[in-house]
Amino acid sequence: MNKTLFGIALVIGGATQPPPLVIEPAPAPPLHSIIPVPAAIALSVTEQLVIDSGTFVVVDRGVSPEVKAVGQYLVQMLWPSASPNLVNWSGDQPARVGKHIRLIVETGRLELGDEGYDLGIRSDGVTLRARTPAGLFHGVQTIRQLLPHSVEHPAMVDRKLWLPTGNITDTPRFEWRGMMLDVSRHFLPPADVKKFVDAMALYKLNRLHLHLSDDQGWRIEIKSRPKLTAIGGSTKVGGGPGGFYTQEEYRNLVAYAASRFITVVPEIDMPAHTNAALASYPELNCDKIAPPLYTGISVGFSALCVDSAAVLRFVKDVVREISAMTPGNYFHVGGDEVKKLTHAQYIRFIESVQQVVNANEKRMIGWAEISPAALVPGTIVQNWIRDSSFVHAARGGKIIISPSTRAYLDMKYDSTTILGQNWAAYIEVKDAYDWDPATFIPGVPEASILGVEGPLWSETTMTREDYELLAFPRLIALAEVGWSQSALRKWEDFRIRLGAHAKRQAALGLNFYRSSQVPWVH
Amino acid sequence: MNKTLFGIALVIGGATQPPPLVIEPAPAPPLHSIIPVPAAIALSVTEQLVIDSGTFVVVDRGVSPEVKAVGQYLVQMLWPSASPNLVNWSGDQPARVGKHIRLIVETGRLELGDEGYDLGIRSDGVTLRARTPAGLFHGVQTIRQLLPHSVEHPAMVDRKLWLPTGNITDTPRFEWRGMMLDVSRHFLPPADVKKFVDAMALYKLNRLHLHLSDDQGWRIEIKSRPKLTAIGGSTKVGGGPGGFYTQEEYRNLVAYAASRFITVVPEIDMPAHTNAALASYPELNCDKIAPPLYTGISVGFSALCVDSAAVLRFVKDVVREISAMTPGNYFHVGGDEVKKLTHAQYIRFIESVQQVVNANEKRMIGWAEISPAALVPGTIVQNWIRDSSFVHAARGGKIIISPSTRAYLDMKYDSTTILGQNWAAYIEVKDAYDWDPATFIPGVPEASILGVEGPLWSETTMTREDYELLAFPRLIALAEVGWSQSALRKWEDFRIRLGAHAKRQAALGLNFYRSSQVPWVH
Repeated sequence: MNKTLFGIALVIGGATQPPPLVIEPAPAPPLHSIIPVPAAIALSVTEQLVIDSGTFVVVDRGVSPEVKAVGQYLVQMLWPSASPNLVNWSGDQPARVGKHIRLIVETGRLELGDEGYDLGIRSDGVTLRARTPAGLFHGVQTIRQLLPHSVEHPAMVDRKLWLPTGNITDTPRFEWRGMMLDVSRHFLPPADVKKFVDAMALYKLNRLHLHLSDDQGWRIEIKSRPKLTAIGGSTKVGGGPGGFYTQEEYRNLVAYAASRFITVVPEIDMPAHTNAALASYPELNCDKIAPPLYTGISVGFSALCVDSAAVLRFVKDVVREISAMTPGNYFHVGGDEVKKLTHAQYIRFIESVQQVVNANEKRMIGWAEISPAALVPGTIVQNWIRDSSFVHAARGGKIIISPSTRAYLDMKYDSTTILGQNWAAYIEVKDAYDWDPATFIPGVPEASILGVEGPLWSETTMTREDYELLAFPRLIALAEVGWSQSALRKWEDFRIRLGAHAKRQAALGLNFYRSSQVPWVH
Repeated sequence: MNKTLFGIALVIGGATQPPPLVIEPAPAPPLHSIIPVPAAIALSVTEQLVIDSGTFVVVDRGVSPEVKAVGQYLVQMLWPSASPNLVNWSGDQPARVGKHIRLIVETGRLELGDEGYDLGIRSDGVTLRARTPAGLFHGVQTIRQLLPHSVEHPAMVDRKLWLPTGNITDTPRFEWRGMMLDVSRHFLPPADVKKFVDAMALYKLNRLHLHLSDDQGWRIEIKSRPKLTAIGGSTKVGGGPGGFYTQEEYRNLVAYAASRFITVVPEIDMPAHTNAALASYPELNCDKIAPPLYTGISVGFSALCVDSAAVLRFVKDVVREISAMTPGNYFHVGGDEVKKLTHAQYIRFIESVQQVVNANEKRMIGWAEISPAALVPGTIVQNWIRDSSFVHAARGGKIIISPSTRAYLDMKYDSTTILGQNWAAYIEVKDAYDWDPATFIPGVPEASILGVEGPLWSETTMTREDYELLAFPRLIALAEVGWSQSALRKWEDFRIRLGAHAKRQAALGLNFYRSSQVPWVH
């Protein structure tokens, strides 16, 4: 005991004897730090399941390739601690294959929905049940977060993996839990995007919206329009070499994301934010003169010559080629920040683009400016400011909400952040977490909300590490906003769970902002 | 004031009136956070130099290409805030070219040595003087650290760069300030090594020792021995694909490091740590049978068949090819942890390798086990444990010290670190900083010490981010150990300066350990 403090206590008490020493029990460490917080959870660390070479991942014989792939993913995750072989179990073998982690598809468990899971952990094995491969995959991510963070590092010497025992039943609140990467203002090579995909999977995000074109760069190969990448993809904000995805790279990226149950949503922003296209093909301009490439960060100055047949042909070519290599149901057409067209021109254009997108069997998505157009019921509107998304909600349409004051990942954390912008807000971690989508946008009730998405615009992010420093940890906060029921989300609880993710994020090599709002455990 | 504390003070004082409120002035923020701390520094933030488009980097007309390159490096560093053009000044023009940052070579300033500099900053311009391009480059790094950390991020919106005014005169304590990357146990692609080179430059390190071969992988193309990479380079610890540098990649890497005044020191470890070579060429084994490739992490089990002519031919081929593409003066031959040879065999081998290295006009370096051999005066011994490096010191030889309890970057920070090992010690940041090379190794006084080096062995590091998490911030501590005079180094001062580097390291996208010993400012 510190002598000075002891002396003070004595005088305060006014007694000749020191007061009895009261030792308060230290608060129990939280039983888990799972993000997003599950719907129902009961765990014990008293009894544990130790993962060792006698531990097998098991799937039933005859399950789909997708289920087997989830099993293989789990095998890979536990390597080299557990058995390196996925066991295909058939009912006539003994039910026990050493300690097992068994993935079971139960299509009848309707309460689990399309992405939920039911996880039971005993000291002798794990059962993970879901209706779908996606549900199993999310359950595997929960297992991952229940394991020590050394699960992220197979080369650790003497690694010990273990799980607490107990039960978790979990389903997402919203169907759409997304991130948007702007790969136009600066370009992210495929390997860097895949690293984001892996981080998204850990937090049960399921939509990767790629902003593939803007004034500063066109980032996707269109075989019928090769100059889009040759010219439009050649530079970026600040100048210097740009970049683009070949169709093969894009397909590979889409498949990689799909293996993590993440749907890629391609965006070609039009009719504005199109300078890179206008610079590539003169016929897209009303004066048939291609403007120079643009490397600044202004918005709103460009527009396709929307009433021309050449532009309609262009739109059809682009939508057709991208749709053909995109298995997901969605095509995002941008539609934001148009300053150079009349309202009538704009509405006419959006409606004709909607026809093109639907003809390619995709649902159209657009930023909220598209709401006044005659949108079909399947079209989705993405809210971003105080905008007219409520118009679409009123007609029964679905809304993705991405409030720039809460969900925009490119806003600065505070005035000292060197990356990012601040036109909408400074967004600290608590701001990114502590809001409810269902009550945030007047006129857009919960029933109209498809989900949430965090856009990461890249005017100021030059490297993957820059993108990461703005995304993390706010994207993690948004993941919980999108997955977990409002009643289960408490900032004081979240910040402690988030603090426990610092070692995991470091093990994953993610550059992330150590907000002073969070009690990081390093 | 906190009410409870106020009450306590009252009782302790025994007075009826509260004691007079004493407000201590807040400690002034430190005037700089330069690491390594310079030899002499006097700064003022009251008067400043603002860097703007009217600020020019200036070199004298007719200076060497190396000096011009340092000028261009500085121009690039300040882009787009300052003028994008390097100004070549000749005496007959007006001396003032707007605000200027002038790089001046003064070969007569002998007190600045080969790497020192003299920096003067006034509100209207900067003069940076040195005897050598290396000295100018180190001075530029000091300017970099005096600038806001946004200097690391040219895409920042509304970036404001400014410098405090004052004077700094600075020279290094030790000639050799190095880092070793083990690219054998796991492989680091050239781009990842370059990122380390850039980080080393920021902290005035000047030697990059590449551990290019070991039991688990051979990482450098040898044209006369193609199987070394085809077979020996094919895997790594834990299995899976390995990798290697082509000669073109190696030359490019050496040149990149040289542009940052960092000398690459190649190491081919022999006669032990050679399983990758033994697996590639059967004739290097005494029984002429190639062992299988090895992907574990044991040491000491392999050895070249040292008394054979085939091995001598092999050594000559390897040393010749690597020396030919290495402009630096050094060739590191390893020589550590030999368990399979007699002492006489080992000594004979080291002495014959020394002849080969010297014949290729390089100074030989070896781990301290080589000390008992008949080493020539120019040979350098690298200390790493309680070893026999004192033997070489006693004969007047030079020692690089890399104590495994202080400088080994692959030791865990504490028992919770998932990366690294702990056979030598846990090394927290204070341990890495708070020691004096001159008094650390019995029998190796300051006069014998060429400098310090931090080896980063890679048994447990799979990705660049893993390497970074072990290197930073301990490598930064070591950089100050190597550069700054002992009397100027105080842990309590260093930890505060280091804490101010968190934002800079995040801006650089470096994964680094947030030690609780350091007051990080994020």
